[in-house]
Amino acid sequence: MRMYDIIKAKRDNKILTEEQIKFFISGYVSGEIPDYQASALCMAIYFNGMNIEETTALTLAIRDSGDKLHFDNIEGLRVDKHSTGGVGDKTSLIVAPVVASCGVKLAKMSGRGLGHTGGTVDKLESIPGFRVDIPTDEFEKIVNKTGIAIVGQSAELAPADKKLYALRDVTATVDSMPLIASSIMGKKLAADDDCIVLDVKTGSGSFMKTIEDSKTLAQIMVDIGKKAGKKTLALITDMDIPLGRAIGNSLEVKEAIEVLNGRGPEDLTKVCVELATNMLFLAEKGSEDECRQMVIKSIADKSALNTFVNMVNGQGGDGEYILHPEMFKEASFSMNITAPKSGYISRVDTEGYGTASLLLGAGRNTKEDSIDYAAGIILHAKTGDYVNEGDVIATLYTERKDAFSSAGKKLLESTHIADEKPQLRPLILAKVQ
Amino acid sequence: MRMYDIIKAKRDNKILTEEQIKFFISGYVSGEIPDYQASALCMAIYFNGMNIEETTALTLAIRDSGDKLHFDNIEGLRVDKHSTGGVGDKTSLIVAPVVASCGVKLAKMSGRGLGHTGGTVDKLESIPGFRVDIPTDEFEKIVNKTGIAIVGQSAELAPADKKLYALRDVTATVDSMPLIASSIMGKKLAADDDCIVLDVKTGSGSFMKTIEDSKTLAQIMVDIGKKAGKKTLALITDMDIPLGRAIGNSLEVKEAIEVLNGRGPEDLTKVCVELATNMLFLAEKGSEDECRQMVIKSIADKSALNTFVNMVNGQGGDGEYILHPEMFKEASFSMNITAPKSGYISRVDTEGYGTASLLLGAGRNTKEDSIDYAAGIILHAKTGDYVNEGDVIATLYTERKDAFSSAGKKLLESTHIADEKPQLRPLILAKVQ
Repeated sequence: MRMYDIIKAKRDNKILTEEQIKFFISGYVSGEIPDYQASALCMAIYFNGMNIEETTALTLAIRDSGDKLHFDNIEGLRVDKHSTGGVGDKTSLIVAPVVASCGVKLAKMSGRGLGHTGGTVDKLESIPGFRVDIPTDEFEKIVNKTGIAIVGQSAELAPADKKLYALRDVTATVDSMPLIASSIMGKKLAADDDCIVLDVKTGSGSFMKTIEDSKTLAQIMVDIGKKAGKKTLALITDMDIPLGRAIGNSLEVKEAIEVLNGRGPEDLTKVCVELATNMLFLAEKGSEDECRQMVIKSIADKSALNTFVNMVNGQGGDGEYILHPEMFKEASFSMNITAPKSGYISRVDTEGYGTASLLLGAGRNTKEDSIDYAAGIILHAKTGDYVNEGDVIATLYTERKDAFSSAGKKLLESTHIADEKPQLRPLILAKVQ
Repeated sequence: MRMYDIIKAKRDNKILTEEQIKFFISGYVSGEIPDYQASALCMAIYFNGMNIEETTALTLAIRDSGDKLHFDNIEGLRVDKHSTGGVGDKTSLIVAPVVASCGVKLAKMSGRGLGHTGGTVDKLESIPGFRVDIPTDEFEKIVNKTGIAIVGQSAELAPADKKLYALRDVTATVDSMPLIASSIMGKKLAADDDCIVLDVKTGSGSFMKTIEDSKTLAQIMVDIGKKAGKKTLALITDMDIPLGRAIGNSLEVKEAIEVLNGRGPEDLTKVCVELATNMLFLAEKGSEDECRQMVIKSIADKSALNTFVNMVNGQGGDGEYILHPEMFKEASFSMNITAPKSGYISRVDTEGYGTASLLLGAGRNTKEDSIDYAAGIILHAKTGDYVNEGDVIATLYTERKDAFSSAGKKLLESTHIADEKPQLRPLILAKVQ
């Protein structure tokens, strides 16, 4: 078998065989297939696409390219949720303790990655004492006891994806449905959960700009999950507006605690309830309605909050911070951003908000960057709200006073104010299963 | 400027600017732009094409990527002919002395390359004493005196093409009109001739399999030549049947001498007359008819043959070999191939004939291979001829007796015999200007 023939076949719109796809991924990871052939193939895939069988074969080859997780000592079904990424997305911090408190196991390994804010493990590390480097046997014990643990990724899951994504990123071949789907699902399937709920974001600040594209991507991923023997469904959720009001690590943890106390922002609460409901439903805890009632009850009776406290204590953190979030250290500097004119916030560039939070120190530009846990943004006005000139629309937090100017400028540039009240679309746009 | 944006623009079917194309070629030659970005761009060009302005800009960037020839001391117009490659193509050996004998300069630098037989300089080196490594000043003197010189390529012409072609060859991006046209014309324009006649081969054993594709490619190249300020035209000639009867280096020189003596194969003679006629026409030696009469006369009165003798003598070779071609050393071994059944030769796979001659030692597989000048094939029957079972259809010549079996097998596999007499198409299929 020759890589040349595989490139030519896809270039000529032929369907690749499972053997050809395995040959490509294993040769690429081992270094026998050079980057310049892989990028030519990715561009041919960009143009000619892949059918569901090819995309599934690619996903499984990526899944099998490195270590796979096995938690042989965890009892019962394990469920996870995966988001396609967005700004200020703290849903994992909320839905994880909710579903665990309802009796479904959640054993999550999460990468740090680069981005506007840290990943889930970075956010949790803003809780003093919280440990994310926990050996597998201890990890399994915590999950069996509290129903939940979230740790950093120690195993090398799906190295093919890492290498291929880095290549696609510099060769303009990221925006391809089969390549996006296989990248996400390849990693996800390596974690070997029983049930997977996908949160496919749509709108500004996400991969998929239209609902139609988001639905297509979601359907591909759900089909792959099912073909791989996993219970899988996807919700299409809005990413034209940041979820909740907090962007930044400890700011988001505090907001998650607000939701678990039943007094969080309405939009964030609603999305979390729907995600958790569908996770329980996949794990066969009852009908969709029954599952929704369980979720609402777990928040109302504080059992989800207590599960979160138990997880934090179990992983070496100080659970008192969850019960008394005012204990979190505040940033040294804060600055209010005011509306430059009166009107409705008609549209925000979510991506721009993310960039502003990165400038304040909440995220990483390179792997070596350290995160400022208290840095970030609290939004006081969101899309659809009416503001008067001079009203505070956001507060910036940072340890780097000199970042205020550029972050403030970016935030204002990303906030559009108009006379007309904008039409808001539903938060949950579709369900794909 | 970023290579990423150039790839993305072409991927999205945008028109690249001259600056973007120059940035790509100069960055690629210098090594700043990696292979994996260049191959992604080539694949995007494969799918979305390039308009004539982009293709011209790419050609000129390739032309300007290395040395350019300047023959400041050669008087009068210089003309050259370029063939897109074919099996047994010895037309350069014939048209060069013909046009020189008619008063147009031909100063050719020719590469060796890989292939079924050697390149033009390899063929000439089969003449004892013939030198192809001649310094520029001496080269210019020979051209001024005899009107013609053909030497090996010393300068590094169009290195971008060499690097890019090697990459395209392994990434399934060779078959792209703008990439083929810019590759050929980029090298050609670096030689800085005043007039260029292109011989675009069509049919089995050439890049372009259909007349329509050949015409399209020819028109692109002619347009580029004109935009670069060169008089340019193209003939579309048949490559379903090898030209003449000889394949191999000294075998082809001897056949060229036959043509210059007025007793060469009809097909080869006809193509050479048309090519030479158009070269003279471009060099403004008269009307097309007047030019054709000059060509025919130069063969009839042996002035072209004498010009060939003068060139050989001028470049250190023994001109007696041209006047007495029976002096050429014959191969140690020869073998006749006979028709396995009676019928018309309905079709031959020209490429297969080339492979057979390579097996006999007439060409190079790698740059390090040496050429056996006397090796090759003489065809005794060609497409359209009727043969009886057992008739000799070809004779193989070689120094490697053990090559007979594989070469003979390849030749027979490539020769199709049928009951019906095939329809033959004209040798010159179109003229593009």
